[in-house]
Amino acid sequence: MRRLFEREPRPLAEMFLFLAARHQHVVEKLRPWLRAGRIVLCDRYTDATVAYQGYGRGIDPQLIRELNVQATGGVLPDLTLLFDLDPVIGVRRIAARRLDRFEREQLAFHRRVRRGYLEIMRAEPKRVRRVDAAAPLAEVERRVRAIVQEFLK
Amino acid sequence: MRRLFEREPRPLAEMFLFLAARHQHVVEKLRPWLRAGRIVLCDRYTDATVAYQGYGRGIDPQLIRELNVQATGGVLPDLTLLFDLDPVIGVRRIAARRLDRFEREQLAFHRRVRRGYLEIMRAEPKRVRRVDAAAPLAEVERRVRAIVQEFLK
Repeated sequence: MRRLFEREPRPLAEMFLFLAARHQHVVEKLRPWLRAGRIVLCDRYTDATVAYQGYGRGIDPQLIRELNVQATGGVLPDLTLLFDLDPVIGVRRIAARRLDRFEREQLAFHRRVRRGYLEIMRAEPKRVRRVDAAAPLAEVERRVRAIVQEFLK
Repeated sequence: MRRLFEREPRPLAEMFLFLAARHQHVVEKLRPWLRAGRIVLCDRYTDATVAYQGYGRGIDPQLIRELNVQATGGVLPDLTLLFDLDPVIGVRRIAARRLDRFEREQLAFHRRVRRGYLEIMRAEPKRVRRVDAAAPLAEVERRVRAIVQEFLK
């Protein structure tokens, strides 16, 4: 952990800020919606904190898992779609647009994040389903539709 | 913990935000100053998170202690002055000015926070020294001077 203190951006400050945002999001949005019987779609959730701040930034993933439980009160997704892509292709795809603080990171960072996601998937293969994001868009759509329809049955 | 999810303000979001701020403060200010051999004075630090978010808001103080260690990397004060005052007097003193989110809390909240601080002092009597803040200003100054001078010897 010691070396985390030496780096920009501050990995632990970033993690705590995501946990604060996550908690507020769960309390004010997700839980009321789930209680009302709605289906809720999230673009990134607790897995992203494990993958980006854990595998990507180097914080102990187990610490993040424990804090995710605190922050969410155990509100976890039933189904997660992992749009998986070689970072070399991913970086090329986003090159034209204005990048956020994560997209601006080096290829090595994206590789660690991807490894994190794939390890999460291996640990929970029923919840986390992989979608090959290198496939053509129509094929990606077909795959998503198939996974979701199977899940909703 | 469950009831924490029902309340305004969001106690856990507040805690994570303080931890993020604390971490950045340690890395960018306190540690460089301490390494340069300076004496650093802080108005509130890790004890405040235990007292306000723990005893005051109802988050498990032990969780906060562990996260304080993560956030500070173990940079802890050598001496802490606890300006202790009955909340009834404290609330009267600040009545004339614009209050922050903690000052606006009910008396019962301030009593829990005070109890938190006093328990921290009982656990670490050598580090945490009580100053009776009900005394006249000149007396408070004298007491602070005496404690600090004794400490610096």
